Amino acid sequence: MRDTPPDLLPMTDRTRVRRVPARGVFDRAAIYRILDEGFVCHVAFAVDGQPYAIPTGYARLGDRLYLHGSAASRMVRQLSAGLDVCLTVTLVDGLVLARSAFHHSMNYRSVVVLGTARPVHDPEEKRAALHAFTNHVVPGRWPELRPIADQEVKATAVLALPIEEASAKVRTGPPLDDDEDLAWPVWAGVVPLVTVAGAPVPDADLLPGLPVFDPARLQRRGRENA
Amino acid sequence: MRDTPPDLLPMTDRTRVRRVPARGVFDRAAIYRILDEGFVCHVAFAVDGQPYAIPTGYARLGDRLYLHGSAASRMVRQLSAGLDVCLTVTLVDGLVLARSAFHHSMNYRSVVVLGTARPVHDPEEKRAALHAFTNHVVPGRWPELRPIADQEVKATAVLALPIEEASAKVRTGPPLDDDEDLAWPVWAGVVPLVTVAGAPVPDADLLPGLPVFDPARLQRRGRENA
Repeated sequence: MRDTPPDLLPMTDRTRVRRVPARGVFDRAAIYRILDEGFVCHVAFAVDGQPYAIPTGYARLGDRLYLHGSAASRMVRQLSAGLDVCLTVTLVDGLVLARSAFHHSMNYRSVVVLGTARPVHDPEEKRAALHAFTNHVVPGRWPELRPIADQEVKATAVLALPIEEASAKVRTGPPLDDDEDLAWPVWAGVVPLVTVAGAPVPDADLLPGLPVFDPARLQRRGRENA
Repeated sequence: MRDTPPDLLPMTDRTRVRRVPARGVFDRAAIYRILDEGFVCHVAFAVDGQPYAIPTGYARLGDRLYLHGSAASRMVRQLSAGLDVCLTVTLVDGLVLARSAFHHSMNYRSVVVLGTARPVHDPEEKRAALHAFTNHVVPGRWPELRPIADQEVKATAVLALPIEEASAKVRTGPPLDDDEDLAWPVWAGVVPLVTVAGAPVPDADLLPGLPVFDPARLQRRGRENA
């Protein structure tokens, strides 16, 4: 068995990681793992010269990202017109505490995807995207739900963004202090940050006797189409 | 004793919350609590017509937000030229699991600040901002550190963004299912998401005998100048 070469995305002038090139990642699989782990992305687009960064849910299916929203939402209407966008997903993994303020940092993984989103009109592709949104958040949730109505599919605007021009930026590891600071008497290292699920809060109208939601289900997140 | 009226930011056409106006928050104190809790923001700006959303650290001092970076960073160079920016901070508080896919949602608090960042040249203001960056992440960290060198202040570019045009958007509470779905037999409610600190990982070169970093210190975050 031979290793297959990694599927690398092209490094463009717009996705090149300039400041610390070693932090740049162009491997599609690594980029997809980050995209599949995040809950929200920030979508940047400009209207009348004013840029906006708007948080929103998303999901990945194959080599495409999907966004959704009410057909009445400003972001959806603007993006449907074919604006250039930047979709960014950022996971903060830890606080990097050095002996000097200057070398404080964060460990993080972020992905930037550049391109143009297209509105999805085909009901089957819309349904597949809505399925992906739901299971992106909670694996296996879709088949448990009251089946989606045609009218709900119609009322939801879905946009597709191909993952063609993208890169990840990753920082891991300890603080990088200057040698002459190593004797400074303060704790230095990494404080990991983790997002955890708290105890589920049942809806007031919940039917009696239903099994409680098991937050361990969220650990299966990050597997496409889970 | 009389209540003082809340200090409201003006609602502009660009910060109005359109889709669900009840989620819009213009109270300065509420906006500042969200800004003080986040670890990273996303800064949107456009270069040659292409928008970017770039994650970065930040801190608030009074009615200003500060950003920083290497003087060589592309974002710092672009923003220093006086570009319009949007700085967004998003906190995801919970997954809102409804009986239908259509009513799934997230509980979140986000703030959008629009404006133009100005480069900070005054060394005293730069120092104050660097102090704020450090203590924004870990309250009380700054005085423990090897004091910052003039040369480090010089090598760090700092940008100031006034908080003049801003709004928050907040969703809280249970899923809002359609009445006819309440009998659907699936668990519905809110799964809270919390960011917690894991066990601190000491740097390999740590001096022996230093007190271990206490993650409980992070609970004091969100108090300005802590």
